[in-house]
Amino acid sequence: MSLLVVGSTAFDTVETDQGRIDDCLGGSSTYFSLAAAMFTEVRLVSVVGEDFPDESRALFEKHGVRLDGLEVKPGKTFRWSGKYSADMNSRETLDVQLNTFADFRPRVPDTFRDSPFVFLANGAPTTQASVLDQVEACRFSVADTMDLWIETQRDDLSALLERIDGLILNDEEAKMLTGETNLVRAGRKVLDLGPKLVILKKGEHGSFLFSNFFQYALPAYPTEHVLDPTGAGDSFAGGFMGFLSGCATLSLWNMKRAIAYGTVTASMTVESFGVDAIARASRADIDRRYDELIQFVSV
Amino acid sequence: MSLLVVGSTAFDTVETDQGRIDDCLGGSSTYFSLAAAMFTEVRLVSVVGEDFPDESRALFEKHGVRLDGLEVKPGKTFRWSGKYSADMNSRETLDVQLNTFADFRPRVPDTFRDSPFVFLANGAPTTQASVLDQVEACRFSVADTMDLWIETQRDDLSALLERIDGLILNDEEAKMLTGETNLVRAGRKVLDLGPKLVILKKGEHGSFLFSNFFQYALPAYPTEHVLDPTGAGDSFAGGFMGFLSGCATLSLWNMKRAIAYGTVTASMTVESFGVDAIARASRADIDRRYDELIQFVSV
Repeated sequence: MSLLVVGSTAFDTVETDQGRIDDCLGGSSTYFSLAAAMFTEVRLVSVVGEDFPDESRALFEKHGVRLDGLEVKPGKTFRWSGKYSADMNSRETLDVQLNTFADFRPRVPDTFRDSPFVFLANGAPTTQASVLDQVEACRFSVADTMDLWIETQRDDLSALLERIDGLILNDEEAKMLTGETNLVRAGRKVLDLGPKLVILKKGEHGSFLFSNFFQYALPAYPTEHVLDPTGAGDSFAGGFMGFLSGCATLSLWNMKRAIAYGTVTASMTVESFGVDAIARASRADIDRRYDELIQFVSV
Repeated sequence: MSLLVVGSTAFDTVETDQGRIDDCLGGSSTYFSLAAAMFTEVRLVSVVGEDFPDESRALFEKHGVRLDGLEVKPGKTFRWSGKYSADMNSRETLDVQLNTFADFRPRVPDTFRDSPFVFLANGAPTTQASVLDQVEACRFSVADTMDLWIETQRDDLSALLERIDGLILNDEEAKMLTGETNLVRAGRKVLDLGPKLVILKKGEHGSFLFSNFFQYALPAYPTEHVLDPTGAGDSFAGGFMGFLSGCATLSLWNMKRAIAYGTVTASMTVESFGVDAIARASRADIDRRYDELIQFVSV
């Protein structure tokens, strides 16, 4: 079934101790789309500037990502620049130019309003909520968030959490959101804030899935050659939502498989700078690595 | 089959943001023994002072731990005092009084020399090696180590690594030992130093198992109420070695189960101050939690 994603499209300049890339295609909805498009029809709502090149558009189209909702506005596309620590676990933002993304007001095209699966990539909670107002047959909605919104727009975030089915966030964000220092307690406490499903991302340490009926842990794929962690979280969400939107039921078994597919797409992403590796991967590559992951973690 | 452990016996004073305990029974071989004794006959080689009370001795005996190798020397028992950070992931040593442990020269009694399973708890590599010189029918030997020996006695440690079957160490130690920042690469590189089996402990993030023929990851048991992390690593090793020494073969399947039992005994230990929780636990408690863990991680 179709999967709507709303988020940023950007050009990133990234430095890690493995190298550097300048002005490569990035942004949360880009990584999400390319990962999710392995599994399902992806419908993109985002904004770019007049400088957005045909080749980037062509990349989305090649992967079957529908661009009816990609707005082109006067000015430039969002640009971000950052540098990662040697262990790739933290990063410093060197420069941000929001440009056309600064006043992003997502408009869901009529052709996208019947999307049963909806992913709200990281953004202001009010902006994310405005998307839910525009969809008509949403069956399963998941949002990402970040420390900035937890700190500055807590009320709006709380209102959003009561409307969505799932929240994906990282370990530090979960601790910040709940005030808990124990990660398991933090994850479970997020459930009390509204979402029926909470996915805690722990980077190289894998992820947790919490609901009131079950909890589940999956280690990360044992990637030995991380070149650029940018987009790992969005690729994870893309693999998760993409696989799930192709499932007949939202069963625990399918949720677990979706988490594993998200883990795989994230591991692909970090093995190249920018979107290269995830854009190049075939579904067969994904399935091969999925099998390896299952073998790696099977008790 | 019998399991020999050589390491420290101590009295610990521990402070966490959950409370404090003064002069409770501790030390690497204590936590190891109490965890391993759930599964097999444990033979302890350690040293204490004349102040070592009968009730501590009785606790070991109640769990069937054989004390032929517990040397009592003039002076006091090893004392350690430390304080943990709020997230329990780091600790500061406030005081160390080595006392009788200062010149610990382990002497393996004749009655213990035929032990097929041997665990060398954290100690100077030459001290650990001296134990291997004294056993006669060792089938499977595993050592623990720490940053101090990696930094100050690298050559002796390298010599030890070529003699043992397995090494248990934590993530930071593996990175320090190999110079790798990527944890998976670090773990695999430890194999090149000699051991056929490497177990990487990641605390709340679980553990990795590496060999040249397989690798395996297991998340930690989702403990919500950590009171005192002291002894978690030694209890992990105790559960692992204890279970394994009761197995007919050292198969991958048994290794995986042993890792899960180690995960369970470690999770029990951190739920009380000192050894209370692990000393109180029954084999039925352990098995119940083992089943929960398997359910938590089953794909």
